[in-house]
Amino acid sequence: MNKAPGTLYLIPVPLHPEGLDTIPEEVIRTIYALDVMIAERAKTARRWIKALCPDKDLASLTIFEIDKHQPNKIEDEWLETAIAGGGVGMLSEAGCPGVADPGSLLVARAHALGLRVKALTGPSSIVLALMGSGFNGQSFAFKGYLSAQTQQRQADLRHLEQMVKKSGQTQIFIETPYRNETLFQSALESLHPQTLFSVALNLGGPESWQMTAKVEAWKTIQRPSFEKIPAIFLIGQWALS
Amino acid sequence: MNKAPGTLYLIPVPLHPEGLDTIPEEVIRTIYALDVMIAERAKTARRWIKALCPDKDLASLTIFEIDKHQPNKIEDEWLETAIAGGGVGMLSEAGCPGVADPGSLLVARAHALGLRVKALTGPSSIVLALMGSGFNGQSFAFKGYLSAQTQQRQADLRHLEQMVKKSGQTQIFIETPYRNETLFQSALESLHPQTLFSVALNLGGPESWQMTAKVEAWKTIQRPSFEKIPAIFLIGQWALS
Repeated sequence: MNKAPGTLYLIPVPLHPEGLDTIPEEVIRTIYALDVMIAERAKTARRWIKALCPDKDLASLTIFEIDKHQPNKIEDEWLETAIAGGGVGMLSEAGCPGVADPGSLLVARAHALGLRVKALTGPSSIVLALMGSGFNGQSFAFKGYLSAQTQQRQADLRHLEQMVKKSGQTQIFIETPYRNETLFQSALESLHPQTLFSVALNLGGPESWQMTAKVEAWKTIQRPSFEKIPAIFLIGQWALS
Repeated sequence: MNKAPGTLYLIPVPLHPEGLDTIPEEVIRTIYALDVMIAERAKTARRWIKALCPDKDLASLTIFEIDKHQPNKIEDEWLETAIAGGGVGMLSEAGCPGVADPGSLLVARAHALGLRVKALTGPSSIVLALMGSGFNGQSFAFKGYLSAQTQQRQADLRHLEQMVKKSGQTQIFIETPYRNETLFQSALESLHPQTLFSVALNLGGPESWQMTAKVEAWKTIQRPSFEKIPAIFLIGQWALS
């Protein structure tokens, strides 16, 4: 007789060391129940598990690590417990696994093996930034990184601005934190003064900050420095229903 | 002397009546602390608040209701407590406020008034479906609804398929639950047999289900009925890093 298929749980962790209270009870309970985890870095995974589930016995926990030099190398061995009918968890370094994050090939493999795939609720800086922007949430796109080259980045920004004007689709993008101020200055120079621009900082932590304003207003607004701080940028329109 | 500006909290609620454990402690604590809420329907808001925060005194809670016939009519009176330096909450009917949801004009108004806007972590069916699909999460778009007309819907589906092929951007869309099976059959007829297609059901509840497979495999796969069940659909590629 065939056993019922087991489950691959996709387990979010906080975005910020002080964001333990952004993790729902469902996640805590699932972490306590599992003995096998897959993670990008076992060390970070252990730190989050210890913080979220202080009573969990880490000695009996197996953590398989995704090889950072070969992130596409997925081993069926990692999923053996799930193949046998049990549960295996996959953790992200920060936030939700599989969103702007490697390791989703493991999800592909789980589907191919006929396992149940269960994503659990947790912090997504993309969703938090979209909510906090006030921009159209009925249609939006996450673009990842823009070009690091000045001219191409300016072209990218103007292209996103055109997308918003044409379709109303909110455009969401990120930058490596040490280039945040450069990207911001590029946006002020490249975008139309009336274009609405939103910046969100430190999402998922107690000191989060977000502001949406026209480009021309950003030039004089009192604001914190964006340098070396995790940030999300958005171009959009107010959502008129 | 000017008071420090107050805060508009964007407060998620469960996607499913049995999903109370998907709401983080941060949200529970915030609901207990607030005396003024804005909601699409006061009745639903009260039901969620009672379920999540059973010890909260509902008699002392003020709930302002967004007029469903005039969803763009936002009153500054609703934000008075925040303008005076306190906190006001905005709740969604289900999931995260401002994502595929009216009421984000209120966020716009809060930014214009110089209030702090703080989005709290909670369940987003779009993010859960993206995580569970195994598709590229570095670049994705939420499209809302496709056309209800057969021919245009088939054209929409083929357009999304082309977007995936050209840019690798994962395409996410929804349908009114009673048309889920119609949309699914359209997808099987319109998309290339090798295209990867994912369907997620009942996300945020205990009976959630998701499957990703090639269109040709979907034709013979054993699956639950999609009829009248909240569903999310995705076309994408496996994320190779």
